[in-house]
Amino acid sequence: KKTFRVVVLPGDGIGPEVTAEAVRVLEVISAASPDIDIKLETHQFGGCAIDAVGEPLPASTLKACQEADAILMGSIGGPKWGVNSKVRPEQGLLALRKALGLYANIRPANFASDSLLANSPLKPTVAQGVDIIVVRELIGGVYFGARKELGAGPDEDSAWDTMVYSIPEVQRITRVAAQIALQANPPLAIHSIDKANVLASSRLWRKVVTETLEKEYPQLTLDHHLVDSASMLIVANPRKLNGVILTENLFGDILSDESSVIPGSLGLLPSASLAGAPSVADALSPSFKATSGLYEPIHGSAPDIAGQGIANPIGTILSAAMLLRYSLGLEKYAQAIETAVRKALDDKAAGGHELRTADLGGSVKTKEMGDKIVDIL
Amino acid sequence: KKTFRVVVLPGDGIGPEVTAEAVRVLEVISAASPDIDIKLETHQFGGCAIDAVGEPLPASTLKACQEADAILMGSIGGPKWGVNSKVRPEQGLLALRKALGLYANIRPANFASDSLLANSPLKPTVAQGVDIIVVRELIGGVYFGARKELGAGPDEDSAWDTMVYSIPEVQRITRVAAQIALQANPPLAIHSIDKANVLASSRLWRKVVTETLEKEYPQLTLDHHLVDSASMLIVANPRKLNGVILTENLFGDILSDESSVIPGSLGLLPSASLAGAPSVADALSPSFKATSGLYEPIHGSAPDIAGQGIANPIGTILSAAMLLRYSLGLEKYAQAIETAVRKALDDKAAGGHELRTADLGGSVKTKEMGDKIVDIL
Ligand SMILES: CC(C)[C@H](C(=O)O)[C@@H](O)C(=O)O
Ligand SMILES: CC(C)[C@H](C(=O)O)[C@@H](O)C(=O)O
Repeated sequence: KKTFRVVVLPGDGIGPEVTAEAVRVLEVISAASPDIDIKLETHQFGGCAIDAVGEPLPASTLKACQEADAILMGSIGGPKWGVNSKVRPEQGLLALRKALGLYANIRPANFASDSLLANSPLKPTVAQGVDIIVVRELIGGVYFGARKELGAGPDEDSAWDTMVYSIPEVQRITRVAAQIALQANPPLAIHSIDKANVLASSRLWRKVVTETLEKEYPQLTLDHHLVDSASMLIVANPRKLNGVILTENLFGDILSDESSVIPGSLGLLPSASLAGAPSVADALSPSFKATSGLYEPIHGSAPDIAGQGIANPIGTILSAAMLLRYSLGLEKYAQAIETAVRKALDDKAAGGHELRTADLGGSVKTKEMGDKIVDIL
Repeated sequence: KKTFRVVVLPGDGIGPEVTAEAVRVLEVISAASPDIDIKLETHQFGGCAIDAVGEPLPASTLKACQEADAILMGSIGGPKWGVNSKVRPEQGLLALRKALGLYANIRPANFASDSLLANSPLKPTVAQGVDIIVVRELIGGVYFGARKELGAGPDEDSAWDTMVYSIPEVQRITRVAAQIALQANPPLAIHSIDKANVLASSRLWRKVVTETLEKEYPQLTLDHHLVDSASMLIVANPRKLNGVILTENLFGDILSDESSVIPGSLGLLPSASLAGAPSVADALSPSFKATSGLYEPIHGSAPDIAGQGIANPIGTILSAAMLLRYSLGLEKYAQAIETAVRKALDDKAAGGHELRTADLGGSVKTKEMGDKIVDIL
């Protein structure tokens, strides 16, 4: 019997409500499977940790995360700890990413069920069939380069940040993108995004992505888009970017959020942030396992609806599926969850339950959605 | 009789075709107005200049631009002078922006005619009434900060760029945004976009924008959005950003392109890049005049359709209208052009001519569209 240790960080706002449902899903899978045992433990992180102990990432939480096989997070932040506060929840998130070396952020943007097409802000003809996975470098670039604040010398009247990348940083994220592309059959196309017509860091990016894929993954197709042009394509013709979008930290922040509105509700989408570099030796392996992974829905803490039990838990439940896939190596359970979610969402005409939480224009509660998915499982 | 000197830079690909129509529009206005004389002269710029003299911005072209009252450009670039070429057309564009001090890029994204709503990739209910003007800082930030290429020492294996802003740079672009907001009645809302939760340059940006508007333009309303969140809003609910989007160079590059696909064809949209800082003294003036201005459609050189006479000239013709407004101070002629364009595009049911070039699904030629607009004028 294989034992896995999963840390749960419910966080702030609706975080505790949505993680509760994903935890039930993991518990059901653990209980029903004779070969595995998933041990869950909860820790404080984010605004609630600031309130409790004065910092968003307490040492005990960090230690638990370092020792865990995987981490499931809800959402953090809220007006109480806004931009003007000294200590802010996001600082904890950036510190956790860096401390665990979570350099690969993976964000699918697709329709969990075809019956959700009408929810997209895009015309159905434009949105139909969109199936994008953004692979974003998460602990490099302008997020972690040297910077100088306004008021600090020299040049008190200016402020700057450094967008910096090294060859190994780009190689390892390229390999993650390649591994993900290879998990599909036929393999997915890779679209690398940069601003190589202006930025030196983007010229490095483009060169290393090209050489790494040519050498280690010659079977994959690769094209390059400038970030401004990609931001247009995501709206005008997103299917052209179907496959894997591979990009650096800041561009990934912008483009993953942009593409995530295509499915019509942020409440539906999961994410994974992984450590553990696929090495050259992994180059042709059909799957890879992260050495550490943080899984969270892409939505925020939504303080306006917190405590009402009406948030959509699907983004968190699908994050738990990604956790099973990338950190525990349990692909078949991951797929079982994804199938159950699809069934809960599908139209009745398509044989589904047609459940709709408030974000999807319905009145199904967080717990009802969780109940149904647990039920189907 | 007031004489204005306007330099025309037709450029590459469809550039010469679309500028030819805008030139006719300016000639008609000049001929019909007893009080003004617009003198037009054509110069080489971009790929064609590289072919002719080995550089995209020849000294003679720069000199003519420096001495002109305004510049009308077509489009530059093409596969012939791609990313791997030593000398590239865009280098000329960046050099021209810097040499003339064109720090304020102004890009409207709206529907030139309501009858174009169906062309948007967004649902009509989402796209209807979108009326955004992006004001992008154009000669600062990561475009012009210090950088180091891969291969240069020290740290041969890395490359970096610096995103840098100073207080005066942010003040002057904020004032341009404010002046543009004040030209509408009631004044437009200002939405400032940054990444202040991560970047020092964005914290400076947010502070200076806030203080400048509070002090000099207290009558205007201001809100702040993070760039990732703004990129979602532009797709999910763009009317929330109606008014002026005020942002730095790189974010402006991405967000102005993203918003420009809402109206359904890049062929429709104009842009202006202005020099001449509105000083504190201008703070309450109802309009301002640029000391130098470059006007161009937002579309590229479209080599695939070049020479066929089928490109949409409206983006360039509306750029000529912006030229009359911001560089020559001829608001009434600017409005006359905009009204004529609307009439050419409006449905027959709405009293228009319903002309549609290929980008709008029709078969009207570049010259026919120009003829009709000249006709209406
Ligand atoms: C909270 C913020 C620092 C973070 C980021 O920019 O990475 C967020 O936007 C995200 O994408 O997870
Ligand atoms: C050609 C390129 C350097 C330029 C930019 O990034 O500024 C273009 O995308 C633009 O927006 O005018």
